[in-house]
Amino acid sequence: MSGRLTIVGLGPGDADLTTPAVTEALRAATDLIGYDTYLARVPDFGTEQHRHGSDNRYELDRARHALTLAAEGRHVAVVSGGDPGVFAMAAAVFEAVETGDPSWRDLDITVLPGVSAMLAAAAEAGAPLGGDFCVLSLSDNLKSWETIAKRLTAAAAGDFVIALYNPASKARPHQLGEAFDLLRQEKPPETPVLFARAAGSKDATLTVTTLGEADAGLADMRTLVIIGSKGTRLIPREGRRPLVYTARSEGEAR
Amino acid sequence: MSGRLTIVGLGPGDADLTTPAVTEALRAATDLIGYDTYLARVPDFGTEQHRHGSDNRYELDRARHALTLAAEGRHVAVVSGGDPGVFAMAAAVFEAVETGDPSWRDLDITVLPGVSAMLAAAAEAGAPLGGDFCVLSLSDNLKSWETIAKRLTAAAAGDFVIALYNPASKARPHQLGEAFDLLRQEKPPETPVLFARAAGSKDATLTVTTLGEADAGLADMRTLVIIGSKGTRLIPREGRRPLVYTARSEGEAR
Repeated sequence: MSGRLTIVGLGPGDADLTTPAVTEALRAATDLIGYDTYLARVPDFGTEQHRHGSDNRYELDRARHALTLAAEGRHVAVVSGGDPGVFAMAAAVFEAVETGDPSWRDLDITVLPGVSAMLAAAAEAGAPLGGDFCVLSLSDNLKSWETIAKRLTAAAAGDFVIALYNPASKARPHQLGEAFDLLRQEKPPETPVLFARAAGSKDATLTVTTLGEADAGLADMRTLVIIGSKGTRLIPREGRRPLVYTARSEGEAR
Repeated sequence: MSGRLTIVGLGPGDADLTTPAVTEALRAATDLIGYDTYLARVPDFGTEQHRHGSDNRYELDRARHALTLAAEGRHVAVVSGGDPGVFAMAAAVFEAVETGDPSWRDLDITVLPGVSAMLAAAAEAGAPLGGDFCVLSLSDNLKSWETIAKRLTAAAAGDFVIALYNPASKARPHQLGEAFDLLRQEKPPETPVLFARAAGSKDATLTVTTLGEADAGLADMRTLVIIGSKGTRLIPREGRRPLVYTARSEGEAR
């Protein structure tokens, strides 16, 4: 048989947020490759299917493994959470293609999109991404803190809403605090800040606070942080947390 | 019965990119409200269901109509394409809640995320959103061109990949050209530019070009435009269009 590689996103966590296209691609695969935590979310289809789980850190190794199997004629699904194109496996696979065996360019490679964490986080809160926004990974595994700081400053200069992926890990406990410190010099202290943990899953929690009071210690690896723009508003509600949305007309002089 | 309002995103076009959660919410609704084009994508569930179609322009009227019906005890689904929180109906509904009948704040309002157009467009191309990126609507219905220009400049200063929603319409034929002109002063002419039309649907087309050569006339209302960063690369392939991805390490000195 002729090899095939499909890079899929499971969505944020709940099984009913995985698209039927992704479920079908998973069912049809002979081999599943991904971080153990994501593979554990793939149902057992009752077919003979090889599962190649691995630690989260070795993305490029995993990508090369997937390409090698596809080149051998297997039907490989590379499994990400959320959307595979947003700080997930798709870029690693294409990096492996670019730098790897030239014959890999002839493979049939498909990306199937999914509901990314930022969309699930926004949906839990209301519509904080309702205006123009920027999306950054705070991980400095692959880029310098200088680059991250430059981008945070630019995002603040443009009065974008800012969604932060990978805000904290055990290896990087201080970066989110530094990001908040930087943004406090650029944005008003009353700017809404959201900590959405495990959004779109049964463990979801949401904290609504302000830039002035935001405690970076609230974030872990499963948290997505959203920092509002001038157009981001809170709608107070009786006995429930406020709704948060960004006005479509944000950024205008008021 | 007690009223309920669910704001759902159908995804980019293909039925198999609509999440099961959204399909179930649509099935359970007594009333569907949305732009005619999106309502036409909702299957007939064989239940008694009222469809309130409308022109695309009257988002706030549509939001108020939905809230009024929910306050009467109906189960209303507000239908968007893509994700409802990204330049779609969710922000309009919350704006209507904030400025409308105070009792609307007590309603049970839920947002169900979907696969947004940018994710589908990126998936067609490879992984152009694999690094940090900004997302802007080029429509100046609700914000000034001055605000848009300020944000484009900031996005370029931060060397973000830029995804442009609503790049052109009959009422605004010149804006994308002006955006390209502005970005040509900030970014190199060889910067990759993608025109993804109807991504994630059976009509999908993708054009890969450069900022130096990009023709704004290629965009219409169904097009999403992606402009690369310094880290965005093309992988040439024999007899097929190149793959496009943004390296995860983008922005570093090379």
